[in-house]
Amino acid sequence: MASQTAVSSERGNQALPATMRAAVLQSQHEMTMETLPLPALEPNQVLVQVSAVGVCGSDVHYYEHGRIGDYVVDHPLILGHELAGKIAAVGSSVDSSRIGQRVAVEPQRPCRTCAQCKAGRYNLCPDIEFYATPPVNGAFCEFVTIESDFAFPIPDSISDEAAALIEPLSVGLWACERAGIRPGSRVLIAGAGPIGVIVAQAARAFGASEIYISDIAEERLEFALEHGATKALNAATDSVEGLDVDAFIDASGAPSAVRSGIKSVAPAGHVILVGLGADDIELPVSYIQNREIWLSGVFRYTNTWPLAIELLEAGKVDLDILVTGRYSLSESEQALKSGKQPGQLKAVVYPGR
Amino acid sequence: MASQTAVSSERGNQALPATMRAAVLQSQHEMTMETLPLPALEPNQVLVQVSAVGVCGSDVHYYEHGRIGDYVVDHPLILGHELAGKIAAVGSSVDSSRIGQRVAVEPQRPCRTCAQCKAGRYNLCPDIEFYATPPVNGAFCEFVTIESDFAFPIPDSISDEAAALIEPLSVGLWACERAGIRPGSRVLIAGAGPIGVIVAQAARAFGASEIYISDIAEERLEFALEHGATKALNAATDSVEGLDVDAFIDASGAPSAVRSGIKSVAPAGHVILVGLGADDIELPVSYIQNREIWLSGVFRYTNTWPLAIELLEAGKVDLDILVTGRYSLSESEQALKSGKQPGQLKAVVYPGR
Amino acid sequence: MASQTAVSSERGNQALPATMRAAVLQSQHEMTMETLPLPALEPNQVLVQVSAVGVCGSDVHYYEHGRIGDYVVDHPLILGHELAGKIAAVGSSVDSSRIGQRVAVEPQRPCRTCAQCKAGRYNLCPDIEFYATPPVNGAFCEFVTIESDFAFPIPDSISDEAAALIEPLSVGLWACERAGIRPGSRVLIAGAGPIGVIVAQAARAFGASEIYISDIAEERLEFALEHGATKALNAATDSVEGLDVDAFIDASGAPSAVRSGIKSVAPAGHVILVGLGADDIELPVSYIQNREIWLSGVFRYTNTWPLAIELLEAGKVDLDILVTGRYSLSESEQALKSGKQPGQLKAVVYPGR
Amino acid sequence: MASQTAVSSERGNQALPATMRAAVLQSQHEMTMETLPLPALEPNQVLVQVSAVGVCGSDVHYYEHGRIGDYVVDHPLILGHELAGKIAAVGSSVDSSRIGQRVAVEPQRPCRTCAQCKAGRYNLCPDIEFYATPPVNGAFCEFVTIESDFAFPIPDSISDEAAALIEPLSVGLWACERAGIRPGSRVLIAGAGPIGVIVAQAARAFGASEIYISDIAEERLEFALEHGATKALNAATDSVEGLDVDAFIDASGAPSAVRSGIKSVAPAGHVILVGLGADDIELPVSYIQNREIWLSGVFRYTNTWPLAIELLEAGKVDLDILVTGRYSLSESEQALKSGKQPGQLKAVVYPGR
Repeated sequence: MASQTAVSSERGNQALPATMRAAVLQSQHEMTMETLPLPALEPNQVLVQVSAVGVCGSDVHYYEHGRIGDYVVDHPLILGHELAGKIAAVGSSVDSSRIGQRVAVEPQRPCRTCAQCKAGRYNLCPDIEFYATPPVNGAFCEFVTIESDFAFPIPDSISDEAAALIEPLSVGLWACERAGIRPGSRVLIAGAGPIGVIVAQAARAFGASEIYISDIAEERLEFALEHGATKALNAATDSVEGLDVDAFIDASGAPSAVRSGIKSVAPAGHVILVGLGADDIELPVSYIQNREIWLSGVFRYTNTWPLAIELLEAGKVDLDILVTGRYSLSESEQALKSGKQPGQLKAVVYPGR
Repeated sequence: MASQTAVSSERGNQALPATMRAAVLQSQHEMTMETLPLPALEPNQVLVQVSAVGVCGSDVHYYEHGRIGDYVVDHPLILGHELAGKIAAVGSSVDSSRIGQRVAVEPQRPCRTCAQCKAGRYNLCPDIEFYATPPVNGAFCEFVTIESDFAFPIPDSISDEAAALIEPLSVGLWACERAGIRPGSRVLIAGAGPIGVIVAQAARAFGASEIYISDIAEERLEFALEHGATKALNAATDSVEGLDVDAFIDASGAPSAVRSGIKSVAPAGHVILVGLGADDIELPVSYIQNREIWLSGVFRYTNTWPLAIELLEAGKVDLDILVTGRYSLSESEQALKSGKQPGQLKAVVYPGR
Repeated sequence: MASQTAVSSERGNQALPATMRAAVLQSQHEMTMETLPLPALEPNQVLVQVSAVGVCGSDVHYYEHGRIGDYVVDHPLILGHELAGKIAAVGSSVDSSRIGQRVAVEPQRPCRTCAQCKAGRYNLCPDIEFYATPPVNGAFCEFVTIESDFAFPIPDSISDEAAALIEPLSVGLWACERAGIRPGSRVLIAGAGPIGVIVAQAARAFGASEIYISDIAEERLEFALEHGATKALNAATDSVEGLDVDAFIDASGAPSAVRSGIKSVAPAGHVILVGLGADDIELPVSYIQNREIWLSGVFRYTNTWPLAIELLEAGKVDLDILVTGRYSLSESEQALKSGKQPGQLKAVVYPGR
Repeated sequence: MASQTAVSSERGNQALPATMRAAVLQSQHEMTMETLPLPALEPNQVLVQVSAVGVCGSDVHYYEHGRIGDYVVDHPLILGHELAGKIAAVGSSVDSSRIGQRVAVEPQRPCRTCAQCKAGRYNLCPDIEFYATPPVNGAFCEFVTIESDFAFPIPDSISDEAAALIEPLSVGLWACERAGIRPGSRVLIAGAGPIGVIVAQAARAFGASEIYISDIAEERLEFALEHGATKALNAATDSVEGLDVDAFIDASGAPSAVRSGIKSVAPAGHVILVGLGADDIELPVSYIQNREIWLSGVFRYTNTWPLAIELLEAGKVDLDILVTGRYSLSESEQALKSGKQPGQLKAVVYPGR
């Protein structure tokens, strides 16, 4: 595990404990509860006492496989990157009035000096650090640190769970942004899991007038129809080709869904691949060429928290409806395993309970 | 063949013959010289006496296979869509002062009323007619008609051949436009055939500072280096992965070149597929996702002739250097077959000679 | 008046009368009811029996001043360009199944062949014809012609009045489009007249989260707050400088409102001038430079009817609430004069009643 | 003067002197040579030994007026923000292999954490520090500090003077970027001083095909024609209205030039105000509205050094031709006064000579 020294330079630390509890992935399928020193706080950071952490598919993947692609869990790692909490202490260059603030955390640390960062695309920073990606620790623990401008104050009207789930909402907002969704757009979303439902809500907030969603699970489709989608398609029986949508957003990762989804797109339309499936997929390139379709993906997000907070406050998106399981910190492993159960969308761990 | 009635409404027709000679593709591998009535001229069209027609790979493909995808040569068809000529007559609503003008012809007829046309993307018009695409005749003949605003006056400094080759140049300009090439861009082009060389020249005109080109034929690479490219890569031995270019433009149609080319692109870069290869290609989607690369193709072009003419006039591109074979109209079949010979880049047919 | 010959080539004309009634502006302040031949129908046009026409400030201006800038009413002119109706006949190249369709009319005729048209900016076509702009007649009459693709079918859920008012709604949508309004945007609108309220509704439909509106009339502000705006500012007492909005849209035409509105804009924000006031206005250019603010205006609109119809159908905008006066065709002059009365927003003339 | 403590944390300081010479503006019209401690070096900064500094109009303005707008020289200030030099020492987190590197300095320090910085518009950072803008010192001295990513290595082919003048070149590149200059653009530039000539060169590098420049001084026009412009217009006698250019870039600051320049712009064209003149200028807003022209300014620049260096290396711009006066550090005041002499374009101070 990356070295964690005792807190040294923070302010407002009168009430801080010397150690914290953390759920640590030791290796594939092996998770233990540990007592660790609090993470060191740098001058421009805040120390956040974690209140809620969502379980993401990538957390589950690290737990089950011990790796994602080139990222290997070869040292103990704290998972979790969807989080909210309360500022417990601030670094020396941060305004101490922030102590006590409820915040949603954007769990990344770009370098701020490379060409991508300076061009406003910090998610593509080659030196970025991201929570719960080896060797960077995440949030299944009591305290984390984050640069102060990546801890966004949230109003009382936003619950801890919703604040934590701004992270996956950001993926959906970023996908809609890149897909060019605008008032009147017609969109197809493949996959009615948590991300699919979030993308549907994001698309609705961007003004899309028709939001098709496809899946093979009828109960997921029904849920999506209640929360953003306007029309459900059963991927096993309904064809999407010829829908002529302005944008197709894949939240399934299934190669067959990607291929057929592309063929639902109108000339000059957009395809955004959110789901992670195979490294390589056979794509209908002549279809893409003949219609001058733009295809890309999303890699996390850039500058989405402020919009997410506004949408939540205005009631234009609802993240609380996604939470189907609640766990204490010591139940983190159970939370990671819960996604396999039918009807589960999103498990949340509460380190403070 | 689509019905062609006698000329009826044109002005300036005192010197017009009643018939014309045309090289007609009867079916796969069967080409004949025919005497046909002149094409009918509509009020908003001009009648162009063809001076030069370039041979495109798609012409060759129709000749050899009798079809391209869903477009089947099931009736006699005149090939050829890269052309220049002189206005011989004008329709009733066209200014008669245009008679005698040397023009480069943009060989397409969009509907002008659909959503794509009205949005400025007339190349994506679902009802567009395009020369030499069944059942629309092309230009291996003495006279053609085109809407007056698609016949662009050219100055004396531009040769007939160069004016005809504005059509493939337009493909290159459109590719650079869509690839976002701008001053300082670094570009990789796969394929050093006529289109590859044209893309290299277009990229140079758009200000690209590094223009890599890859091919397996050394003599093609050498030629490309003389005419636009700044660095040659042998596709058989040199790897392009890691070049971190801003844009990759494929002019090869080779699946392996497409795959490796994508992996040469920097985060937020562009991939534009110009070459036509297989309908489906296995692509490295996780690479595209993780770098948020935009991938698309070009389908012909929109509004490129004015820029092409300016670049030719200013000497920023040189199309004459591409012409490696010259043929009379009755030698059209020979011209179509010439591309197989080593060292051939572009054959041109001169219907007036 | 531009020559109007008898209907000659339309289909579906069995029930058509030979003449129609029209309210004709003879010259400044002089309006008469006339019996005129039906307008001639060209092959690509439809003949629309007008059901409702909104009165625009420009109609009033022509009536009161006999001119707008260089456009002078030196021949009899039919005013009115906000209209809906029913297709009564179609030109020879239009599908006759359209007869009977309820339509909203986009009252402009671009040339479709100039560089602006082909680039997708047909509102900037130098040869465009626009209803009720000398010498082109408008819609205070029983029948008008329009190119078939500028007559948009409307569903039963949209009233005649709302369909007519898609024209001013289009101005608002186009202003929001050009102002870059998107989810989360903060906007200031100056002027709470019909256009200001429409812009507020459009901004809401584009996802703006804060929509300030300023005016000096409290009852207008109250109305705007009920129909789109989120915060009202009294221009006489409240300062807008420092609001740091993402966009300022002027719907007042008042030079002082324009100047102070510009100073409400954040760096990289947009200013869109919709209101027509003085030809020249002193603007705070150093403020614009130092914040790199983009300033422009709207000149009518391009491709807005489809979105407007979707927003109306979805209930995201409400145009019926704007109608404060209803008049028969013979009361057209009274309708033009009605805007001076307090509390009047939008007068509508019904040629069929 | 802002406090300057002794160098403390740099590496490579074996050869560094304890003090340096600086030309200090004490107040309006009062400049003295001072011996000062070297500026303190922060961990992420480099210490640059200044080799060349260009004199900018803003330096002259501070010297002559003691202020620019709200920025008042109320403490001693070192002027100069166009500079190149050699890295003499590096902060603790900078790779020490950079010591000895020749660099061009981008003289600004954005905060990197605000919304503008994170959106890629760091020039609009409200907390930015900029050289030679009270109370931030500039470069008429022997040593300066700058964040390491704002010190760009330059090859031997670029002279010290040219490297220093990348700063004004950046203004020109940024203006062309914002003006949307692209291959084939037609541009009008008002003002043939140093910035006007630089903008002409930048426009040429962006591919503009026609580059009009206007001025009242014939010798300036002749010089501009030799170095980028394609056509000269005498502002006293030639009208620019009706040129229908794609972009007008003002480098004069003259209200009359701004007004007439706007009227040279085609529909959908751009106006970029670079020159600083009056705070308020009467502009032809109805012209802007009717043509949907976009008007903005430039405030410094963002991410321009890499492109500038490439253009210089490729010989696409030439900055050395601008240098008309050379001065030692102790002659700085004389350099500031030199601009008044006829024929002077750009004075350069060499602190190391």
